[in-house]
Amino acid sequence: MYASAVQDLIDELGRLPGVGPKSAQRIAFHLLKLPSEDALRLAAAINTVKSRVSWCRRCFNIAESDRPGAEAAPTTECDICRDERRDATVVCVVEEPKDVVAVEKTREFRGRYHVLQGAISPIDGVGPEQLRIRELLARIGNEGVEELILCFNPNIEGDATALYLSKLLQDLPVRVTRIASGLPVGGDLEYADELTLGRALEGRREVGA
Amino acid sequence: MYASAVQDLIDELGRLPGVGPKSAQRIAFHLLKLPSEDALRLAAAINTVKSRVSWCRRCFNIAESDRPGAEAAPTTECDICRDERRDATVVCVVEEPKDVVAVEKTREFRGRYHVLQGAISPIDGVGPEQLRIRELLARIGNEGVEELILCFNPNIEGDATALYLSKLLQDLPVRVTRIASGLPVGGDLEYADELTLGRALEGRREVGA
Repeated sequence: MYASAVQDLIDELGRLPGVGPKSAQRIAFHLLKLPSEDALRLAAAINTVKSRVSWCRRCFNIAESDRPGAEAAPTTECDICRDERRDATVVCVVEEPKDVVAVEKTREFRGRYHVLQGAISPIDGVGPEQLRIRELLARIGNEGVEELILCFNPNIEGDATALYLSKLLQDLPVRVTRIASGLPVGGDLEYADELTLGRALEGRREVGA
Repeated sequence: MYASAVQDLIDELGRLPGVGPKSAQRIAFHLLKLPSEDALRLAAAINTVKSRVSWCRRCFNIAESDRPGAEAAPTTECDICRDERRDATVVCVVEEPKDVVAVEKTREFRGRYHVLQGAISPIDGVGPEQLRIRELLARIGNEGVEELILCFNPNIEGDATALYLSKLLQDLPVRVTRIASGLPVGGDLEYADELTLGRALEGRREVGA
């Protein structure tokens, strides 16, 4: 029913995650009403990201070319991998680049990362071969990695990925740990769900240890 | 925390209506992971819409330039205004271009449209001067309009706009009607809210009339 350029935009917007047909229509009309320079800034931001940002060839985190306008080469490394002060013997394995940001915010971790770019999820058709697991195995041999900290979401997909990796790595000379699951700091025991409280009990530690 | 190109994209996405910071991040990572050609199609669709689509100079509906690549000139008219078979004496006044599509789908209306591009809403800072009301008044004189059908949403903003227009137009030689508000076809009297049922009673008509 709409002019074809408008319908094309609605269709493209509707393919974005979390954007249904009604939201796509609403966003398209919003873009139509916006002054051209504001709407074109979004188009330009997409173009810039696709030309300048790619994955770090080592850890598969986001890697951005530092020269404006330059394409990210397939040999690009991310800022963390390029930082020689980071401890190469400890690698924090995460699902997504946003998890790297979350761990960095704690300022507790001085090692490197490995981004699997997903988690095992049979329901979504994601198996181990879709993840950056082969590349992780290669790094363990090449970079003298001593400990892998599995930093996955405490849900079914995270659990499945942790289980798969721990079995795969059990014969390699590398320590594999997983971050603790339990009550969030400031949380209230009374309102904790049973699964979280169960995990917290399971992961109990000696006081003063 | 993110590379600047990625952060720019998240910021731009976060300005879209209904897209919060978390959705913006999710959409940005989705675009990062997409094959370049798929992500760039969205950027291209935005560019195309902003260069080829503008407002009809007569009715302020969407008007698209018909030559691909050509910019929509400020003298462009929409398909409906260009269609000489449409009755120029009856004008359906709507809030947004999507309302034109809704009325067209009924196949009941063969007149023309006028899109106000909004409704009076003091809470959102939209007054009569932000709407295409001056242009509507000009059309009544120039085009021999005999009836205006106010086809606004049955809510506070639609009511306020209808009231404003009916007062403004009361001394002009034009009939002003508003679409009926009442029970939706197939609806259930028992489950109708009081306001809708009240409107339905108020708008009752002679059976057989």
